[in-house]
Amino acid sequence: MNLPEDALNQTNTHAELAQDHINNDRLQEAIAALARFGGRADGGVARETLTAIDLASRRYLIEQARALGCEVSIDDCANLFFRRPGNRPELPSVLTGSHGDTQPVGGKLDGAYGVLAGLEVIAALNDAGITTERAIDVVAWTNEEGSRFGPGAMGSSAYVESSRLAQYRTARDADGIFFGDALDNALAEVTDVPRRTMPQPHAACIELHIEQGPVLERAAIALGVVTGIQSVRWFTVTCTGTAAHAGTTPMDERGDAMAAAVGVAQQLYQQASRESVHQLRLTLGRWQVGPNSINTIPGRVSFSVDMRCGDEAVVERFEHTLRALLHNATWRGSMSVERIFMRPPTRFPESMLTLIEQGCTRAGNAAPLRLTSGAFHDAMYLAEHCPTAMIFVPSKNGISHNAAEATDPHDLFLGVQALAYAVTALASR
Amino acid sequence: MNLPEDALNQTNTHAELAQDHINNDRLQEAIAALARFGGRADGGVARETLTAIDLASRRYLIEQARALGCEVSIDDCANLFFRRPGNRPELPSVLTGSHGDTQPVGGKLDGAYGVLAGLEVIAALNDAGITTERAIDVVAWTNEEGSRFGPGAMGSSAYVESSRLAQYRTARDADGIFFGDALDNALAEVTDVPRRTMPQPHAACIELHIEQGPVLERAAIALGVVTGIQSVRWFTVTCTGTAAHAGTTPMDERGDAMAAAVGVAQQLYQQASRESVHQLRLTLGRWQVGPNSINTIPGRVSFSVDMRCGDEAVVERFEHTLRALLHNATWRGSMSVERIFMRPPTRFPESMLTLIEQGCTRAGNAAPLRLTSGAFHDAMYLAEHCPTAMIFVPSKNGISHNAAEATDPHDLFLGVQALAYAVTALASR
Repeated sequence: MNLPEDALNQTNTHAELAQDHINNDRLQEAIAALARFGGRADGGVARETLTAIDLASRRYLIEQARALGCEVSIDDCANLFFRRPGNRPELPSVLTGSHGDTQPVGGKLDGAYGVLAGLEVIAALNDAGITTERAIDVVAWTNEEGSRFGPGAMGSSAYVESSRLAQYRTARDADGIFFGDALDNALAEVTDVPRRTMPQPHAACIELHIEQGPVLERAAIALGVVTGIQSVRWFTVTCTGTAAHAGTTPMDERGDAMAAAVGVAQQLYQQASRESVHQLRLTLGRWQVGPNSINTIPGRVSFSVDMRCGDEAVVERFEHTLRALLHNATWRGSMSVERIFMRPPTRFPESMLTLIEQGCTRAGNAAPLRLTSGAFHDAMYLAEHCPTAMIFVPSKNGISHNAAEATDPHDLFLGVQALAYAVTALASR
Repeated sequence: MNLPEDALNQTNTHAELAQDHINNDRLQEAIAALARFGGRADGGVARETLTAIDLASRRYLIEQARALGCEVSIDDCANLFFRRPGNRPELPSVLTGSHGDTQPVGGKLDGAYGVLAGLEVIAALNDAGITTERAIDVVAWTNEEGSRFGPGAMGSSAYVESSRLAQYRTARDADGIFFGDALDNALAEVTDVPRRTMPQPHAACIELHIEQGPVLERAAIALGVVTGIQSVRWFTVTCTGTAAHAGTTPMDERGDAMAAAVGVAQQLYQQASRESVHQLRLTLGRWQVGPNSINTIPGRVSFSVDMRCGDEAVVERFEHTLRALLHNATWRGSMSVERIFMRPPTRFPESMLTLIEQGCTRAGNAAPLRLTSGAFHDAMYLAEHCPTAMIFVPSKNGISHNAAEATDPHDLFLGVQALAYAVTALASR
């Protein structure tokens, strides 16, 4: 019997106590306080990873965690860990948390909510006078967003596979700054914080996050149990024709790269609608047109293809569809496709889902909704390392990566209550 | 009987003499010499209007024209005129020439060829010892290209309608420099050149230019008689939806501005192919996508529509098609269209075409091809002012606005021979 199943089969007195000690006022104040680091007049937050304001927010979190009695440590990827020790230091800890960084213009909740929820769980355990068997580690991962340095989720993916870090250190931001140098600078700011090796074993990991989509709001359900994360593949399609004068070039002599690209894109949208029963999601989000002038026939058009589905077979089939479309296109030019990223679906273990469901049901007085995450999260990488799961709370209008990102405060409270239950249950044996 | 018809009905001894005195070596040397102003290692020319290198090339042209005995003058739009006086100064002059500026990366011929051809006609008349009845004005128009300051053909359009100049002076380049200030600077550089009022009456105008399209090359004919310039309309279509996360937003909840734009664009291309029998030309050349990120559903897409046809009724009908498509589009967003430019077709008078045909036939020992210009030219505006026409020579592979722009030197020679014939015939009575 593994840990999540063991936790399920007990009467979780400590878990219920911890849940009941979650303090909503303290939670909302903590969210407001962290949002002041990079806070914008429009209510958004601009706190990209390892910027000066991110480093200031890290110092603030360290002080908050120490005030709660936590042991603070940091690893080579500047992931910050706040540990509440347990009775049995020899046992792997229970991990929770999320990321502290935001998009260039993000909201108060994406990432920050999960970190502050973890600290609130520790505060509730303190208030309840509970000492768990296992330690609880609250983590603030580095660079989940990937907006300043690509790819995203550097901190969590390097944590579970530290060989990734050397490559990440060579990533540069728009100003040419290396991620490695930004990391070293961040580490030099916290010489009072002991270094921690990575990875370390964990009994389980739970990440609480806003949904960033409309599913919970549409269902009018406050809590979501995330069953896994969709499969995703990214491609760049490039159409190369001949730039020429819009006025002088007869239609039958054109190598119009935009006409070719539009033809392929239209067929992709049509094919995707045939896969709608399988929940395939298709986005052609980034376009580059050359020379991009009103009176010049485009000579080169490239566009990105983002395809996602909970079912890997559907994504596999759609990649074949894309390649066949390009292969069969006939025009006065060439087409190419490059796959630039792929990730199979993540499935969280059923025992973790059931435990979280217990916590959610007790917190919300209603059954939570099971749903798949459309977005990546740090939990995707932790799932390679230990039994992992996620809890979602609704996003108003499904909006995220936006100053307008918002969640009903009561839903935020219920999410932390559910987290407190599950983390405490896992840490109690 | 108007002047072109009168010129047709005479034995044009002077015209034949002038044609026979065109010196190909001198012509090719002049083209090479002017191309050194802004010449690039790749064979292209970078001489945008009113830049330092353009001003240097103007000084060079002034010196060349004075060496040929021309009276040089300049108008308020910095159009340069090189006059070879005739016997009867009271008669309106015959105008020829083109523009001296290039695209950011252009070729040696677009514009420059027509200006240098005019000076070569004057040199040939000098060599032949002919004094025409009317003066001949060779012009180098300012800012035909419109790449540094929009719109294009500022010089010629302000010349025929000087009230346009005040508005043009407020145009700014990418560095924020006003066209008016650039003009004043150019005028201050040539205080030795008398100012000329604009407009002045002209008996006729002929512009010699490279075709910038593939029609003459495809027909293997060295000389083209341009019957007119296509009608053109420009639009900006804007699709406004909702930017959202590519992973978390279900397909049926998306306001995907790119999916909407691609749908409209595809229908436009299809409708345009139905008008191919009428030679409609459709270009969707400039695209702007927001936020233009791989994993974000585009919230706003705008694209330009350039539609052209020799037949105004076809363009009118296609504008209705465009508006109906947008009106009928159903999606979770809005669509708008703005017409940003329109110009009815230009038709050159038959008497001018016949005269040019005579000159072309005698020069090339073969009938020229009649064709419509797909591109705008300064002659389009001069046609509002006096009997006007154009001669085309082939463009290799139809390429222009490109360092690879080229024309067979013998074709360039034949073009100037044809010009010499027509200009001299017009100036001879």
